[in-house]
Amino acid sequence: MKEILIRKRTFDRIADDLKRHEGRIRPVWLDEEGAFYAPWEAQTVETPQPAIAFGNIDVWFRPKRREFIEAVMATPRLEWFQSGAAGIENPVLVGFGRKAEIYTTCHTQSEAMAEWVLWAALDFFRQGPAHRAQQSQKSWGRIESREISGSNWLIVGFGSIGKAVGWRVRALGGVVTGVRRSGGSADEADRIVTEASAEELAKADVVLLCLPHTPSTEGMADAAFFAAMKQDALFMNIGRGKLVDEAALIAALDGGRPAFAALDVVAQEPLPEDSPIWSHPRVMLTPHNSPATHGSIVRSDELFLDNLERFLSGGELLHVADRSLFE
Amino acid sequence: MKEILIRKRTFDRIADDLKRHEGRIRPVWLDEEGAFYAPWEAQTVETPQPAIAFGNIDVWFRPKRREFIEAVMATPRLEWFQSGAAGIENPVLVGFGRKAEIYTTCHTQSEAMAEWVLWAALDFFRQGPAHRAQQSQKSWGRIESREISGSNWLIVGFGSIGKAVGWRVRALGGVVTGVRRSGGSADEADRIVTEASAEELAKADVVLLCLPHTPSTEGMADAAFFAAMKQDALFMNIGRGKLVDEAALIAALDGGRPAFAALDVVAQEPLPEDSPIWSHPRVMLTPHNSPATHGSIVRSDELFLDNLERFLSGGELLHVADRSLFE
Repeated sequence: MKEILIRKRTFDRIADDLKRHEGRIRPVWLDEEGAFYAPWEAQTVETPQPAIAFGNIDVWFRPKRREFIEAVMATPRLEWFQSGAAGIENPVLVGFGRKAEIYTTCHTQSEAMAEWVLWAALDFFRQGPAHRAQQSQKSWGRIESREISGSNWLIVGFGSIGKAVGWRVRALGGVVTGVRRSGGSADEADRIVTEASAEELAKADVVLLCLPHTPSTEGMADAAFFAAMKQDALFMNIGRGKLVDEAALIAALDGGRPAFAALDVVAQEPLPEDSPIWSHPRVMLTPHNSPATHGSIVRSDELFLDNLERFLSGGELLHVADRSLFE
Repeated sequence: MKEILIRKRTFDRIADDLKRHEGRIRPVWLDEEGAFYAPWEAQTVETPQPAIAFGNIDVWFRPKRREFIEAVMATPRLEWFQSGAAGIENPVLVGFGRKAEIYTTCHTQSEAMAEWVLWAALDFFRQGPAHRAQQSQKSWGRIESREISGSNWLIVGFGSIGKAVGWRVRALGGVVTGVRRSGGSADEADRIVTEASAEELAKADVVLLCLPHTPSTEGMADAAFFAAMKQDALFMNIGRGKLVDEAALIAALDGGRPAFAALDVVAQEPLPEDSPIWSHPRVMLTPHNSPATHGSIVRSDELFLDNLERFLSGGELLHVADRSLFE
């Protein structure tokens, strides 16, 4: 009997699917008051000892996160941890990765993140701020907009998220250049280049960062990067905040190049109250929730259930992380 | 020599293309001070006598519209009028249609209108208003969003605009039901139905009107229509304002069903200052400019130039309107 640690709201969504494995698993949920409970036995659990833990979005953005983390780290033997995220840079996840015998990642947030990108790009091209200002002033005036169709995109980082964006942009008639060090070609891009050179930046109507934070990517979007962009271009970051030199970004926006920035991530999260990013008229900021859609949650449940089936039948799990990543 | 009446800003964009027909055409522009001018002869024109007129977006939303209309209506023989619009309900266009020997419509605004629809839908699904309120309050809080992927759309009116929307929504993973009286099937929809019945309305996350204003469509979106919609659904109108009973819409939004309305058209345009639509917290309003993109203008220029080539060589023009429409 494998004990599975899960959030109550996750259990509520997938209870019927878990029931199929009755006799082989013991779900233990953590509710939002911090209590552990085994629903199939209808009893409180004092000390959970999970062999399996599902660390999805319900863990990270809800109350009692700490209790979940402590229970995972205290269990005698963690056979498998299913993450709800693609990345593993977070120190808590590194801790889980070291503890777990198998650690699986989740890439089902790409779709949600790609829709965030389309939303932010359309709000820029369609002059959302100007339209909203007009409506609030009860003014009926013509505003000329731009289109994704025919626009040039530079997508810096062309993994699962970059591809999910590239595929959609191409479907809508945009022209996509993907940037990845390994080069080659991809169905989701019109062309692939190996670096976000000044020449490439100068051609793009939209520049999107969607790559991880590493020593080599830290601060890559700096004054020279922004100076190389088109004056009327949009800069977006859904990767990690530390890819951007935020002082340089603010100075660049104040100088009029690029025209606008849409950010879902910032260097320090939550963003400090005194940051000029909050109220800059040419910044759209969302609180690191480009992946936060109902669809993302459902897809991550489906991956967990698929992997659970594989785990229980001794099969090979999907998206197993290389153990060397946690060393 | 065929005299062509055109706006100066249109001429400025297509001067090189017109030059290819030198000797066969005489462009006469109308500038924004109301003066007529023949640029190839560098002389003012007192009384334009166009055989051809190009009534694109530069006519309808710029100063000196009246002067353009009067010049077209006063010319002794109008051989061909190229409209920049798909519709012909406007009384001025009906007048042009009666006067012109050939009247051609333009359907190149569909792409721009379809991007407007995606923008409005994503701003609703992504909780744009809540995100902007958070940013203005310097608050970093999680907001769960929805996705176009997996959403159900009812597109009422499945002509060129409805299809341009349907195609994009399907590409993004949405499920499209198109409504048109003639039934049948279409590549741009998962299914076609013949009316926007209460049963169909009840299934849709998004209901979009994109059909013309006729006696049978006037006021079709009434209290019963809104009452049949899902509580958390989005209502959109890019057709004509008079399709909607605006008092019923406001009452429905106040009652909480549907959740939100995005309108590019209203019954009286410009919208009167005392209309509750302006400041309703669950209405996004734009001033009839879903087609107003740079791309729309360029595509309509291209159609005009293509048709001009056909006209001068005695070929068959594209999108010739049936004369009976103007009777």
